[in-house]
Amino acid sequence: MPIITLTTDFGYKDHFVGAIKGTIYKELGDPKIVDISHSIAPFNIQECAYILKNSYKNFPDGSIHIVGVDSELSPENQHIAVFADNHYFIMANNGVIGLITSEIVPEKVVEIQLPNSVDGAFPVLDVFVKVACHIARGGKLEVIGRDFKALKDLRNVKPRLSDDGATLYGSVIYIDNYGNIVTNIEQSDFLLHGKGKKFQLLVRNKVIKQIHRKYGEIVDYEQDKEKRKTPGDLLALFNTAGYLEIAIYKSDLNTVGGASTLLGLDYRDTIVINFE
Amino acid sequence: MPIITLTTDFGYKDHFVGAIKGTIYKELGDPKIVDISHSIAPFNIQECAYILKNSYKNFPDGSIHIVGVDSELSPENQHIAVFADNHYFIMANNGVIGLITSEIVPEKVVEIQLPNSVDGAFPVLDVFVKVACHIARGGKLEVIGRDFKALKDLRNVKPRLSDDGATLYGSVIYIDNYGNIVTNIEQSDFLLHGKGKKFQLLVRNKVIKQIHRKYGEIVDYEQDKEKRKTPGDLLALFNTAGYLEIAIYKSDLNTVGGASTLLGLDYRDTIVINFE
Amino acid sequence: MPIITLTTDFGYKDHFVGAIKGTIYKELGDPKIVDISHSIAPFNIQECAYILKNSYKNFPDGSIHIVGVDSELSPENQHIAVFADNHYFIMANNGVIGLITSEIVPEKVVEIQLPNSVDGAFPVLDVFVKVACHIARGGKLEVIGRDFKALKDLRNVKPRLSDDGATLYGSVIYIDNYGNIVTNIEQSDFLLHGKGKKFQLLVRNKVIKQIHRKYGEIVDYEQDKEKRKTPGDLLALFNTAGYLEIAIYKSDLNTVGGASTLLGLDYRDTIVINFE
Repeated sequence: MPIITLTTDFGYKDHFVGAIKGTIYKELGDPKIVDISHSIAPFNIQECAYILKNSYKNFPDGSIHIVGVDSELSPENQHIAVFADNHYFIMANNGVIGLITSEIVPEKVVEIQLPNSVDGAFPVLDVFVKVACHIARGGKLEVIGRDFKALKDLRNVKPRLSDDGATLYGSVIYIDNYGNIVTNIEQSDFLLHGKGKKFQLLVRNKVIKQIHRKYGEIVDYEQDKEKRKTPGDLLALFNTAGYLEIAIYKSDLNTVGGASTLLGLDYRDTIVINFE
Repeated sequence: MPIITLTTDFGYKDHFVGAIKGTIYKELGDPKIVDISHSIAPFNIQECAYILKNSYKNFPDGSIHIVGVDSELSPENQHIAVFADNHYFIMANNGVIGLITSEIVPEKVVEIQLPNSVDGAFPVLDVFVKVACHIARGGKLEVIGRDFKALKDLRNVKPRLSDDGATLYGSVIYIDNYGNIVTNIEQSDFLLHGKGKKFQLLVRNKVIKQIHRKYGEIVDYEQDKEKRKTPGDLLALFNTAGYLEIAIYKSDLNTVGGASTLLGLDYRDTIVINFE
Repeated sequence: MPIITLTTDFGYKDHFVGAIKGTIYKELGDPKIVDISHSIAPFNIQECAYILKNSYKNFPDGSIHIVGVDSELSPENQHIAVFADNHYFIMANNGVIGLITSEIVPEKVVEIQLPNSVDGAFPVLDVFVKVACHIARGGKLEVIGRDFKALKDLRNVKPRLSDDGATLYGSVIYIDNYGNIVTNIEQSDFLLHGKGKKFQLLVRNKVIKQIHRKYGEIVDYEQDKEKRKTPGDLLALFNTAGYLEIAIYKSDLNTVGGASTLLGLDYRDTIVINFE
């Protein structure tokens, strides 16, 4: 039985997630259900796209990913099922698959059209769960809808390069649990456009000249403890998802603050890299 | 093996939920445990009742629902096990079953009386888990206690109709993850008392004259985008649980706000429907 | 297949927990994964130690506990695997095992040294999950590293007794979901040093002379309701983990407040017991 994952903006309090899981148990008997996240900011497609892209690959091939963000059916927000990279995605056509399809061409996309389908306020339960269980039982996408060509894109997927090639303009696409700021600049963009040149990374009024591969790398453990970099110091790294991240060493949003609060950076704000 | 669900006010940080799950694993080997919610506001019976009522039915018959809210034993808060609608409920007698028993007469209710029972500060672990595992193994309710007749009711279960039948007074019984306000007015109440008449729904200083069946229904997709209803617009709908809900289209409590914050409505506040 | 538990400061929003679970499913096929907590305050070793100590024992012998708090590898923060009390713990050597090893001598501790190991920003995924799956398949600790002797301690594990033996100085080691304050004074310390004498427990400007064994014990149910202790009253009890706890009866941090907010107590603040 393949795994069914859940990524939604339903939160952890309401009955929605319980109702969904109960229904999947009722349909499949002994399913494997894994929560990816239910704390996406409501209707935040960008956040959801980032979380989905960076977790789905860790699951076994054939896994089924239900995405419950901005999923009400409308003429402009069709219900779709996507097979890409050997994974199934069930979601609305609102761009949330965009970070994945910007890199991988889907093998199949169908617009979901179930007979006697309820068109209501809880399509994840009424439609997506039915489709997921159909796939989990070995059913084909052809049975639940017809081919669909109009996949929506996601905005700000890629950073913008200046005409002279000397400046890369990125933007904030995610802020994590520690207040670390994730930008849309991937390590591959940086290598492609920077070509190994020196650079200045500008974040608000701060200038960063080095990009690390782990947080603790800013600490020189051969120095005396008093002289070392400490919690509260700013750094940049390519995170494990491959994105440029601006972080505060050992940050905590509830006490000392994190990069997002200390630098005053929010979604869609700009980060600039000048290559020399 | 039947499913055991958990609905508590323990939150997601403390060790309580982990301790409970570990104990169930130790007792049953390979149980099916599903979290419904651990984010009930502490001691909030009304919230818990709403979440429980609207999730339990989705689970297969025979499921066992542990409710860990206000569960310390006292002479006025007995420990009970209820079999109703083909589901088992293990909880304290504090009214939390009231939304279910207002519609369905339980087949059996027993007051839990285990031999050598610990009467301490963590009855969910010391008592409820034991009872759940007993039932999961096929044990009978008769074995764990004696028949109990004094089930407590829940307040504000039903809205109040004015003597002349022209006005229905409801109250707020739940506020969801989006800040949407759920009232105790069910669609059946509305149809029974409204008899298809025109109506005015009064919420603070707002007047609403239409009740939808999904959020996006307020948007006219044939209009130009600039002229359409947009995130931030107020609407009423009967939610998928069947209750009258006051919502803000595409709300987010952390950014634009939701119905609860924008209208200043809280638990127990009044909502009025005047039928013409 | 043994249970794998997760205790981290990753929160419930980011992709980290989903990525970890997906990887475990990919490795083991049909694992048993249980979340203990993902809401440890970032880098808070003390909190994590308390949660871990008070949940692990409830799991069956042989369970494998992954701890993802402050886990980046450094010369001072080795990756270790510990076998103690018939449980496996995989974590960094930052003191988080200290509450357990202050009572139980571990049978085996190894420093993790995997071939071709990634030394990056996500060691829980790159290292700890690999070790957990190795153990889950029946693998030995000897295979994944060499014996390690330099386990770090945790600060403030034990309360301090005055030279004359008349005063016990404890400190706050945990604040729970209800705002209840947990101190490092265990019931065994209290019995050992108090020897049954009368005492005064000093908390800020409050004096408490009785320690209960459940919250509701402060209520006298034989009195009229109007004369009883009510939500909002202060009490002390030995909680189910055996620690002295200062609580407000039926507290809620979001409404009436809890002991932490009403008394203004935070981590490391002092609690004093004077024996007569």
